[in-house]
Amino acid sequence: MSMRPLTLGVAGLGTVGAGVLKLLADNADVVAARAGRPVAVVAVSARDRARDRGVNTAGLRWYDDPVALAGDAGVDVVVECIGGSEGPAKALVEAALRAGKPVVTANKALLAVHGAAMAELAGSTPLAFEAAVAGGIPAIKALREGLAANNLSRVAGILNGTCNYILTTMREQGREFADVLAEAQKLGYAEADPSFDIDGVDAAHKLAILAALAFGRPVDFTSVHVEGIREVSALDFQMAEDLGYRIKLLGIAQRTEAGISTRVHPCMVPQAAPIARVDGVFNAVVAEGDFVGRVVLQGRGAGAGPTASAVVADVIDIARGRFTPVWGSAAGALAAVPSVPMSAHTGCYYLRLMVVDRPGVIADVTGVLRDNSISLESMLQRGRAPGEAVPVVLTTHECQEAAMRAAITRIEDLAAVMEKPVLIRIEPA
Amino acid sequence: MSMRPLTLGVAGLGTVGAGVLKLLADNADVVAARAGRPVAVVAVSARDRARDRGVNTAGLRWYDDPVALAGDAGVDVVVECIGGSEGPAKALVEAALRAGKPVVTANKALLAVHGAAMAELAGSTPLAFEAAVAGGIPAIKALREGLAANNLSRVAGILNGTCNYILTTMREQGREFADVLAEAQKLGYAEADPSFDIDGVDAAHKLAILAALAFGRPVDFTSVHVEGIREVSALDFQMAEDLGYRIKLLGIAQRTEAGISTRVHPCMVPQAAPIARVDGVFNAVVAEGDFVGRVVLQGRGAGAGPTASAVVADVIDIARGRFTPVWGSAAGALAAVPSVPMSAHTGCYYLRLMVVDRPGVIADVTGVLRDNSISLESMLQRGRAPGEAVPVVLTTHECQEAAMRAAITRIEDLAAVMEKPVLIRIEPA
Repeated sequence: MSMRPLTLGVAGLGTVGAGVLKLLADNADVVAARAGRPVAVVAVSARDRARDRGVNTAGLRWYDDPVALAGDAGVDVVVECIGGSEGPAKALVEAALRAGKPVVTANKALLAVHGAAMAELAGSTPLAFEAAVAGGIPAIKALREGLAANNLSRVAGILNGTCNYILTTMREQGREFADVLAEAQKLGYAEADPSFDIDGVDAAHKLAILAALAFGRPVDFTSVHVEGIREVSALDFQMAEDLGYRIKLLGIAQRTEAGISTRVHPCMVPQAAPIARVDGVFNAVVAEGDFVGRVVLQGRGAGAGPTASAVVADVIDIARGRFTPVWGSAAGALAAVPSVPMSAHTGCYYLRLMVVDRPGVIADVTGVLRDNSISLESMLQRGRAPGEAVPVVLTTHECQEAAMRAAITRIEDLAAVMEKPVLIRIEPA
Repeated sequence: MSMRPLTLGVAGLGTVGAGVLKLLADNADVVAARAGRPVAVVAVSARDRARDRGVNTAGLRWYDDPVALAGDAGVDVVVECIGGSEGPAKALVEAALRAGKPVVTANKALLAVHGAAMAELAGSTPLAFEAAVAGGIPAIKALREGLAANNLSRVAGILNGTCNYILTTMREQGREFADVLAEAQKLGYAEADPSFDIDGVDAAHKLAILAALAFGRPVDFTSVHVEGIREVSALDFQMAEDLGYRIKLLGIAQRTEAGISTRVHPCMVPQAAPIARVDGVFNAVVAEGDFVGRVVLQGRGAGAGPTASAVVADVIDIARGRFTPVWGSAAGALAAVPSVPMSAHTGCYYLRLMVVDRPGVIADVTGVLRDNSISLESMLQRGRAPGEAVPVVLTTHECQEAAMRAAITRIEDLAAVMEKPVLIRIEPA
């Protein structure tokens, strides 16, 4: 192989950036064979030159300012591993694309928030982001190329490994959320400030990207309905088990007659569903197409190795000249499908109340549901403690989110209802 | 979109070819958006012009001889849906590639048997075959592009829907092989001559293709060890359940120190393994890479819709100019890794014997195993019937296939062993 190497400038040498350098060093041969030419990192940018990252940066050009990487005439492709929707990551990607330089990024926030503008800026310059969603799983490639012949009706996924780890541990060990979160932080599975993960924002970024690809429309992060996992309790896991469900934080994008609905929230999923069995830090993406049927992809959603695998796959595509428009179709061919608000959602619900155990309480609660045209599927009171608070779980047949919201507002006001009701949506397999 | 359409000639209008025509008619808009230009079938070839295939062939140029399609100057891309490793399918693909015309094929036999010669003939002309393995699952794309940055250590899969349907039904309904096969034939899930599927040949074709892609080496069908599912009985499913396993026909390609082993045979897999839960006509592919870890893909492995989805995805790649060498790397960059014979395999075994229930029989059997250095993990006799045949099941610790074969030959010769022993290899999750 005598071709000139494809040269990379890597900005950000945290977990992802260092992982990319390590992969390119360890797997140089296989990467060169698949890329059709050698791939060489020639320049890097990071804040601290002195820090030991376990990778060799000797001989590489060093830039304190990441944006300067884009101007390095010896850099063919810019690899952005800084992260964040604003600041230096955005400035670097913009500078590179303006210079007509291909960009590979792992930055879901940037794509979710500024993806439409970035696609416009990119035009026919590659802007690749396989690592932005579901880590090492080639989910972007599957949606944008592998299933490209289909009209997709639904894409759903376990898109945040931190949440899935916490929920899996809560279920397996019968422990409460706060307790498991604290342990996950100690183990490095959750950040010191975990809200980005556990409040569902990270999953929502990824879902916004998947939805745009699946439905061939401009990315629309602001329309994603987002709920996190803080309110799920050990008791809900016991109830889920009894009812034949597992609790997962899912991101779901669905085509309905009215438009596209996108939502991230805890779900009860049937124990037999493939996604119910995806545990720990694993991610999964389920896509449903009119010709292909259901396709399920699972694998590691984060970490240095899986993310580097996805980043370098994008680099290989660029080396081979394999080009796909950012959102799968040219901007002009994107569909102007409206987003549907969460209030228009219809589905089945799990509702857990803590109520005073006394006659008439259930009649009051079920009366409110009836007044809102919500039909009950099951009701279960756990334990007896006259005059004290006991859990009551109700599951409903399909109803409107707006009706359920109205009902909950009234149920919360009932004197016998002691805590904020817990609502978990039941999703079909 | 004012570009000239990409024109297709489709040879073979059976399930797959008719499915391709239907998809291109139904999903013309989404295909054009993803392809960047319209895609139009302009010519077809099939034996019987009069047959109603449920698709509109009016206005298409009709060729009785499929090879003539390749010579049609108005055909940009040849889509081969005839099937078979020899005859018209091979002649057509060769003619098209010689004419420098891109080919999309669903033909696993052709790729498995003649893949090396076809790749040489293709050179820089696209020869795409996503539909050849695992139907609608974008497995080829995942291995060849999505996971391209990895050294893979193992690829395994449920690659034949007919076998998986039969095995699933046997387990769920406690029925015997012959009975379920007959029903599957009636339902159209199995061919009148089912040997291609149930003897593992179809899975072996697909495995040979996956192994070549995974390990970046020339395809080598003749080295695949092949066993089918005829000898698995309802009793084995009961025993598997008790032992915590499911029985699946797997194709497994593995990198060992000595080279690449490729094998298709029934396996006991732990019930908790993702692949154990892939039931019915579904397929699955599991890949393990040094950076990405384990990735699992599942979906429909056959049928008009999923196969057409894969064929048209390849057409879209060609329309976009996305090119990948047939085996993922240029011929010169393929590794010359030797194939390892089955006799060198090491693993754990499930061995079921029908033996006369009398003192000393187990001692004889276990003595033979000891003489071949095979260490037992468990032994279980089902039921008691002095003087009559009863099933005895043994599971072993890891041992050499050659030793196990030698032991079985001696065990078969024991007077108390009434039937041919059933051997099922135990695979780790």
